[in-house]
Amino acid sequence: MDKVLLAFSGGLDTSFCARYLAVDKHMDVHTVIVQTGGFSKADLDAIAERAQQCSVSSHTVLDRTQELYDQVLRFCIAGNVLKNGTYPLSVSAERIVQAMAIAQHAQSIGATHVAHGSTGAGNDQIRFDVVLRALCPNITVLTPIRDLALSRDQEIAYLRDNGVDGDWTKAAYSVNQGIWGTTIGGRETLTSHEPLPDDAWFTAQYNVTAPQLPPRECRIGFAKGEPCSVDGQNMSAIEVIQYLNQIGSEYQIGRGMHVGDTIIGIKGRVAFEAPAALMTIHAHHLLEKHTLSRWQLNLKDQMSTWYGQLLHEGQFLDPAMRSMEQFFAHTQESVTGEVTLRLEHRRYDVLGVRSPNDLMQSSFATYGEENHAWTGADAKGYAVIASIPSRLQQNKNS
Amino acid sequence: MDKVLLAFSGGLDTSFCARYLAVDKHMDVHTVIVQTGGFSKADLDAIAERAQQCSVSSHTVLDRTQELYDQVLRFCIAGNVLKNGTYPLSVSAERIVQAMAIAQHAQSIGATHVAHGSTGAGNDQIRFDVVLRALCPNITVLTPIRDLALSRDQEIAYLRDNGVDGDWTKAAYSVNQGIWGTTIGGRETLTSHEPLPDDAWFTAQYNVTAPQLPPRECRIGFAKGEPCSVDGQNMSAIEVIQYLNQIGSEYQIGRGMHVGDTIIGIKGRVAFEAPAALMTIHAHHLLEKHTLSRWQLNLKDQMSTWYGQLLHEGQFLDPAMRSMEQFFAHTQESVTGEVTLRLEHRRYDVLGVRSPNDLMQSSFATYGEENHAWTGADAKGYAVIASIPSRLQQNKNS
Amino acid sequence: MDKVLLAFSGGLDTSFCARYLAVDKHMDVHTVIVQTGGFSKADLDAIAERAQQCSVSSHTVLDRTQELYDQVLRFCIAGNVLKNGTYPLSVSAERIVQAMAIAQHAQSIGATHVAHGSTGAGNDQIRFDVVLRALCPNITVLTPIRDLALSRDQEIAYLRDNGVDGDWTKAAYSVNQGIWGTTIGGRETLTSHEPLPDDAWFTAQYNVTAPQLPPRECRIGFAKGEPCSVDGQNMSAIEVIQYLNQIGSEYQIGRGMHVGDTIIGIKGRVAFEAPAALMTIHAHHLLEKHTLSRWQLNLKDQMSTWYGQLLHEGQFLDPAMRSMEQFFAHTQESVTGEVTLRLEHRRYDVLGVRSPNDLMQSSFATYGEENHAWTGADAKGYAVIASIPSRLQQNKNS
Amino acid sequence: MDKVLLAFSGGLDTSFCARYLAVDKHMDVHTVIVQTGGFSKADLDAIAERAQQCSVSSHTVLDRTQELYDQVLRFCIAGNVLKNGTYPLSVSAERIVQAMAIAQHAQSIGATHVAHGSTGAGNDQIRFDVVLRALCPNITVLTPIRDLALSRDQEIAYLRDNGVDGDWTKAAYSVNQGIWGTTIGGRETLTSHEPLPDDAWFTAQYNVTAPQLPPRECRIGFAKGEPCSVDGQNMSAIEVIQYLNQIGSEYQIGRGMHVGDTIIGIKGRVAFEAPAALMTIHAHHLLEKHTLSRWQLNLKDQMSTWYGQLLHEGQFLDPAMRSMEQFFAHTQESVTGEVTLRLEHRRYDVLGVRSPNDLMQSSFATYGEENHAWTGADAKGYAVIASIPSRLQQNKNS
Repeated sequence: MDKVLLAFSGGLDTSFCARYLAVDKHMDVHTVIVQTGGFSKADLDAIAERAQQCSVSSHTVLDRTQELYDQVLRFCIAGNVLKNGTYPLSVSAERIVQAMAIAQHAQSIGATHVAHGSTGAGNDQIRFDVVLRALCPNITVLTPIRDLALSRDQEIAYLRDNGVDGDWTKAAYSVNQGIWGTTIGGRETLTSHEPLPDDAWFTAQYNVTAPQLPPRECRIGFAKGEPCSVDGQNMSAIEVIQYLNQIGSEYQIGRGMHVGDTIIGIKGRVAFEAPAALMTIHAHHLLEKHTLSRWQLNLKDQMSTWYGQLLHEGQFLDPAMRSMEQFFAHTQESVTGEVTLRLEHRRYDVLGVRSPNDLMQSSFATYGEENHAWTGADAKGYAVIASIPSRLQQNKNS
Repeated sequence: MDKVLLAFSGGLDTSFCARYLAVDKHMDVHTVIVQTGGFSKADLDAIAERAQQCSVSSHTVLDRTQELYDQVLRFCIAGNVLKNGTYPLSVSAERIVQAMAIAQHAQSIGATHVAHGSTGAGNDQIRFDVVLRALCPNITVLTPIRDLALSRDQEIAYLRDNGVDGDWTKAAYSVNQGIWGTTIGGRETLTSHEPLPDDAWFTAQYNVTAPQLPPRECRIGFAKGEPCSVDGQNMSAIEVIQYLNQIGSEYQIGRGMHVGDTIIGIKGRVAFEAPAALMTIHAHHLLEKHTLSRWQLNLKDQMSTWYGQLLHEGQFLDPAMRSMEQFFAHTQESVTGEVTLRLEHRRYDVLGVRSPNDLMQSSFATYGEENHAWTGADAKGYAVIASIPSRLQQNKNS
Repeated sequence: MDKVLLAFSGGLDTSFCARYLAVDKHMDVHTVIVQTGGFSKADLDAIAERAQQCSVSSHTVLDRTQELYDQVLRFCIAGNVLKNGTYPLSVSAERIVQAMAIAQHAQSIGATHVAHGSTGAGNDQIRFDVVLRALCPNITVLTPIRDLALSRDQEIAYLRDNGVDGDWTKAAYSVNQGIWGTTIGGRETLTSHEPLPDDAWFTAQYNVTAPQLPPRECRIGFAKGEPCSVDGQNMSAIEVIQYLNQIGSEYQIGRGMHVGDTIIGIKGRVAFEAPAALMTIHAHHLLEKHTLSRWQLNLKDQMSTWYGQLLHEGQFLDPAMRSMEQFFAHTQESVTGEVTLRLEHRRYDVLGVRSPNDLMQSSFATYGEENHAWTGADAKGYAVIASIPSRLQQNKNS
Repeated sequence: MDKVLLAFSGGLDTSFCARYLAVDKHMDVHTVIVQTGGFSKADLDAIAERAQQCSVSSHTVLDRTQELYDQVLRFCIAGNVLKNGTYPLSVSAERIVQAMAIAQHAQSIGATHVAHGSTGAGNDQIRFDVVLRALCPNITVLTPIRDLALSRDQEIAYLRDNGVDGDWTKAAYSVNQGIWGTTIGGRETLTSHEPLPDDAWFTAQYNVTAPQLPPRECRIGFAKGEPCSVDGQNMSAIEVIQYLNQIGSEYQIGRGMHVGDTIIGIKGRVAFEAPAALMTIHAHHLLEKHTLSRWQLNLKDQMSTWYGQLLHEGQFLDPAMRSMEQFFAHTQESVTGEVTLRLEHRRYDVLGVRSPNDLMQSSFATYGEENHAWTGADAKGYAVIASIPSRLQQNKNS
């Protein structure tokens, strides 16, 4: 009997897959779920219970939150990666790390097949397929949902007929939560003009009725580009992110709407809440403006666009990504210091930085101040020379 | 007697220049000030009076607000140009247009010299020098302040000795206002960590003590990438900008802090308020996400970095700028529609768009919905092929 | 009976398609071949005869050489587009224009289907599919060869059984000829290390045994970036290209080997001869170095990479291509002048240019000569300022 | 008495500087020359003799050929850096390394001043000034030639009056030789259209009258992107370069004409001979096409433009250069193998590669061959999806 490892979320689609692969395909079904910071203990327990209900041979939880940070988020921070200037690519980053974990686990348990419950409509199918095929070339990838194109009712009926009962009511909003952000899709995100209703936001739990919190400051520390402290207290990068998600959520900070090109090539729109990602990237970017050269800043911008695109499109394994990571990593050598933010209800300001590498506080010269690094005559000479290309052009045109 | 055209702001430096050029240099001094949307009638009157007080031969006001929009801001919007992701380059854009106006005026009045009051420390000296030298190769550029390096007290004494009295007390904050934004520099902006005090912001006049305004929505219309209406009422682009500055200021929207590389090469920090610029660019960018292809979006990002850098550094006359403008202009062909924003105290959200060219609302296919544009098998085929480069790499490594 | 338009080359695959669609699919088969400069009158007659032999309802020849130049090659010259610095993308450019012509023709004759004979292995299938699907969304694309995966022998047997005889011996080298170059594939191009044998080159016909021609000079004239004369004689751009192909071939100039990523994602290698393309682009590039600004040159390089990639990958219809073309077109405004080449056996040198817009021969200043545009003190001032970023960095590190 | 270290070539300008600084400026003059592969033993002896004739306190030869390779050329190869697609930036690379050596030496001997003999016209003055000011912020840079703007006759008279005789006849061509190439300037290079005469080329010494050499093959080996062998014989990278320069010169390979923007901003033209640089870069680039991903190749192209520009403009110390070097270095991990060239009189072909990392000879799939990595249906699915963006656009336009 063929052994299949199924990426399992406990939802209707993957529950169907579990039974379908066992019953119709006579396979030995093992399920796995990869934690990347978004599941509570209760979530994971419920998913495990559902797996058991589906009579799978085994169910495994893999925690890859640290890998998510080490292999992807670290560089998303270094590159200030925001897709279309807005979205921190939370789901893209998670899916890649999950697919890599599943590929590795499949091999370790000797599976001959891997299955995932993606439909043929979205981005995740491509991300899973690309990574799984690259890392497990000898394992067959199965996608029953994409292949069979069943309706929800058909899936529910199949499950009931195969002994799995449950409340399969479709939630009004589909939510994906991870350490780098939560995405929310629903009726409104299918339009181009409607915002998400107030109570559909994930953090609406915190304070829709509660009084707004008073403003507070918050200092994020970075060491070589990586978050390492909050308010002077040393933490791991993941702890910083978790802490910023917590306090950011209380202030309802970090909400946005992402509109972008799906891998398939159509436009998609999704709401997201990513307080830690946005605060971290904005703070980090400000620190970079104080510590990097103009050419580093400009070239990072260029590269960041491509890093984000390849990550989004599931091409994380392309060696060009590793090459870009080396570039980003080098630029971070001097990105050390503390950045102060002020949090208010639904907004924050990045107030300023303190850094031992701050090029602005150099003893060498200070903007707007008397300085000894150059004279007026030097500046004039510079301007004369800097005008030459334009003078040459004007001379030609005249 | 040599005729000199002096760029005149009525401040201490340019007042000194006016007298110095007349008295010490025996020149026939004509002054000019170029309006780019930041001076009130009262401001201009006061400056004209000061010019008279300095006994200049003539004083001229040139309004170049429309040129500022037509020649620069239009492309800053098309390119979503924000220096280092933050600052709309308000001053850079203004200075270039002012320098071009002064160059043209100098030639029209037959001046043999042009003078400006820049010091040797900042960006403006380079922008003025480069543009003036390129456009008036036969006119000599004079920069008494940069050349003489006098103290404020020396300048004040000189003016008094030459019959010009006035209150030359240095303001705590130096403010530069134009249609595309106001910049504010002062004690705090010389540090890297201190924010601007609440009452130093330009729009503090509006409502430091007044109650916060209730939230309101605002719809900005664009036609081929240019702002053309607010809340359904047709306006010129400049009127839209002025209107957004007005209501944005009432909400204290659009404040920021820019840290960047000066042309000279050191780091500088400046506070800015640019409600219209930020709201317009963010609204425009969202509309682009709905109406442009992914390659247009990505390539625009790349080009925008260089457009902003060359604009900032005074290289506006480089023909590469014109070539980039053609690129930007073409991308705007389909950027037509309306964008809704919600304004709250000190923040705004860009809620959504309506556009006849919205690629997301295509009859062709809709994200997350059943569609007939492709099948699950097509998507699977795509994923198989998309995995080939990574499979090839993994094969090599294994 | 469904009407199908078949892209027809007269080879085994498309001959099979013609009969298969008529006999097995009961379709009304019309064939078309698109001339892009590579077929002789005799070639076209032989292909028409073959079509007749296959009993097609009609056979049409469309000449799109001018469209190839106007819509694609013009911009390949403007962008100096050489894939991986080597290959002028001859086939990519042709296929796109052929696919556009076929799409248009299919609609004009009211075809419900379009067929092409591509296999599932190469680039052309993607280029044809993408363009046909985009331009004829209501016409079904058929690809019998890709779908059926028959052997050559099976195809030959089928044709014989259906009354089409012929000599179907496979040529040792597959050759694709067009105005922008000839590609040659064979046993050696499947290796990574073997060069094409001397007699396999397309132009081997000219002078394998003949004595080498003596060196000669050749002047190519450009007007706004477009080739417009040779040796002072005005010609259309296509005439220039044809002429350069003729004389270049006699000198065996323009041979190369292209190794690149196929659209599918594997590496492919092909020999090519493109005398006109290479001489034109190199001459044009030299003229640009004399007439464009450094920023135009640099940004053109950046954009050229993406223009070439999208053209290669069949994404010619992406509006980003039109936007880039506007950029390229603007840069060409001043690219007017004459470039002299010297041709020798199998090599050429680009000797120099004469241009009314030559920035090097400006009255303003000349390299290495005494000049009045700046002084030593200006240059020193420039150097002082230009050293500031590095001094700032060193100051930080010390 | 102030101690000055003078960069000394033994020519008229630096001989003048040596005496002028000693006699008129009463300084303790020490001279230094930095070998970067271009000086013969005889050259260095003659220069030392000249230094002695000028009565300098000491004269030092620093060999920095290895540093030139390690710090610059290695990355020029990795990046396939050719300015404007043509010129290997030989002089730029040398000057930077020479300036760094002089800065270090000045500090080690306790000099308070450094002098160089550049004029105010060219690139070298900026490169020397920028590097010296950055690395020796406390040492004063002197440039007597730039400052005094004397005629050759005045310099000769001064030297004669100060006891230095010599034959100061100006050579018809100014030659700069180094391991990465030789540049030649003269009457013709001041025009835009005249080629260098046959006998002005540096390698004319080899075989203007000798019979042409018969064709030969040559295999260059690379290990992680660095040249490491020729024809199977292991050599250091420098030995490979020297060997290729030798045999390339015998074939008169590697001649070219570079036209580009000087740092000052005007256009300059110079002849060059760089057989090793061109052969190495072309061979290396071909090996990369076989071993890198398409995204690595494309991004390398982008970055190479900026690396070359900053190197050319003397901004080698910008940390962005180090960041780019990390990027380049990572891409070279798999660039190992051997490349075969065929050398003929004045030309060469790069024939092919053999590499253990050759992605084209993968067991996974081979271009143009039957393959098992994907099916026709997969390719069709890919094409369907790849057409979606264009279909979406066409749908909008229709």
